[in-house]
Amino acid sequence: MADPLKSPPLTCPSVLTAHEKIKGFIHVTPVLRCTYLDDLASSKVGAFKVRGAFHAVRRLMEEEGWEENGGRVRGVVTHSSGNHAQALALAAKTMGIPAHIVMPTISMPSKIAATQGYGAKVIFSGSTSVEREAKVEEVIKETGATLVPPYDHPDIILGQGTLGIELQEQASEMIREQGREKGLDAIIAPCGGGGMLSGTALSCEGTGIFVFGVEPSFGGADDCKRGIEQGKRIESVKSLTIADGLRTPVGVYPWSIIYERKLVREMFSVGEEEIKKALRLVLERMKVVVEPSAVVGLAVALFDEGFRRMVEREGGEEGWDLGIVFSGGNVGIEALRGLFPAS
Amino acid sequence: MADPLKSPPLTCPSVLTAHEKIKGFIHVTPVLRCTYLDDLASSKVGAFKVRGAFHAVRRLMEEEGWEENGGRVRGVVTHSSGNHAQALALAAKTMGIPAHIVMPTISMPSKIAATQGYGAKVIFSGSTSVEREAKVEEVIKETGATLVPPYDHPDIILGQGTLGIELQEQASEMIREQGREKGLDAIIAPCGGGGMLSGTALSCEGTGIFVFGVEPSFGGADDCKRGIEQGKRIESVKSLTIADGLRTPVGVYPWSIIYERKLVREMFSVGEEEIKKALRLVLERMKVVVEPSAVVGLAVALFDEGFRRMVEREGGEEGWDLGIVFSGGNVGIEALRGLFPAS
Repeated sequence: MADPLKSPPLTCPSVLTAHEKIKGFIHVTPVLRCTYLDDLASSKVGAFKVRGAFHAVRRLMEEEGWEENGGRVRGVVTHSSGNHAQALALAAKTMGIPAHIVMPTISMPSKIAATQGYGAKVIFSGSTSVEREAKVEEVIKETGATLVPPYDHPDIILGQGTLGIELQEQASEMIREQGREKGLDAIIAPCGGGGMLSGTALSCEGTGIFVFGVEPSFGGADDCKRGIEQGKRIESVKSLTIADGLRTPVGVYPWSIIYERKLVREMFSVGEEEIKKALRLVLERMKVVVEPSAVVGLAVALFDEGFRRMVEREGGEEGWDLGIVFSGGNVGIEALRGLFPAS
Repeated sequence: MADPLKSPPLTCPSVLTAHEKIKGFIHVTPVLRCTYLDDLASSKVGAFKVRGAFHAVRRLMEEEGWEENGGRVRGVVTHSSGNHAQALALAAKTMGIPAHIVMPTISMPSKIAATQGYGAKVIFSGSTSVEREAKVEEVIKETGATLVPPYDHPDIILGQGTLGIELQEQASEMIREQGREKGLDAIIAPCGGGGMLSGTALSCEGTGIFVFGVEPSFGGADDCKRGIEQGKRIESVKSLTIADGLRTPVGVYPWSIIYERKLVREMFSVGEEEIKKALRLVLERMKVVVEPSAVVGLAVALFDEGFRRMVEREGGEEGWDLGIVFSGGNVGIEALRGLFPAS
């Protein structure tokens, strides 16, 4: 190759010149700040659940008489063994109010520790929803805390919907960089309780962007899809799908947006093997650690024949610019080993 | 919580208002484009090896007489079973010239396929360096292709060094956002052949930023550190460290920058268990899939007592703003399972 003796001198200005020469060809490598490694209790986290929790807490604090009625001392309460517990704990800590989180005794120790790490008071309960709700009632009686549910409330839905705003903005910018002046054609979002899906649907109202919801089919976790088919919301789900963040039945407010207002065009569901295939692709090719729930939308986009035919039919030669929401990174190495056992 | 009846209407404008309310508290969730999933042969990839390869090929094409001497037909050649093979294949394809890549017959089929996928001609050889170099000589005789080595050339080093420029720029911006007007205090970069470490060191020359190099200690892979101690470059390494991207002995040009010009302040090394601990943290907490080689710098920053004492001594109460280069994501689920066997 180029004779080393003719190379530019090995100096900093030569590196700058090299950068000019190649920067049209390379991605800027992103610099990541990791608050965990910084050992900082940062008030910024990426999880989508946080959007709902922050919005709900802000709205609560703006309520007339909240301060006068002792809201700052009474704080908030919820029951959750997962992301919502941590999200609400963080939102409350950031706003300087107490959070009481009811968690089943059998919750993962790491999740209990994380919730306590955000300064929340963890109260243990049995694991059935009856036991959990009874304990919440107890806490409310004792402390006067306000209940912040995980998904079935307008303020939560509006908060989750901000994800759709950001996705639209960033995608439009990416498309513009390719010299095309348009936005996304469609967005796929996963549906558990439906807070994020319905929030995303609201964020797309009137934009012409189609919104599709996706669920795992295993064990009947596709309750929203089945509910739409029978014209009635399904209120209970008992699936053990690996997409464990999507085992929840869709809530009343989300249902009103998804089904009654028809802001979600169609629901799709996908099997466990497709979810695993998509998960492997994301881990190995995109190099991002996510949980099975996060890749259900990708699994539909890649493997669902009906979805693919629709895109071919409607998108034509150009195809669609499709945004897929990935949400949830709660997976450890042990869980991954369980999902992909040695063959 | 806030009475649902008093919530804003469930509309897109309400989502925008919600976004205003919470955007000070959340990270913008990054939108990722994945060229693999797009099934596009994009000419932009993030791997640092690509920086060296693109710069070297561009420089080669600018050489006097390159076009007239048939350079566009002769193309480039290298031997590599790893990232450099793919990086050079991609750079050549982008520039529209042929690439001949000599790979050992025992290379991983996925790497062979990836290299061919970028349009390179793969020629097989035995796996010793003598056999590989003999095959390269053969290819040069037959095709007139120009050799582009993986790290031991100024043009490669300058290309890799562009990573340091980007890191400095992005870090300064992050620090500025926190209301402080300064740049990084130090950068840690891994050292195998030394191309990236020496390039990073060049990018910091005259800036006052300290550059530290890191190596795995297992099986003598800390050849650069040992070479500095004995005042002489070590030319051969036979380590089977899990940080397999760093098994190479440091090259002549990198050595001249690291040792003779003293642009790297100090080398540190770290054991296999510390590398695994750092890898687990990155996978589980930063949610990024990287190979063991990528986290050697983090392992030093977290677990090396000498390094930590130095930062305490020199950084005082404020500490240091430290940039750590993570490089290398070539790890599949099977490899991860091997690194973290069920206990």
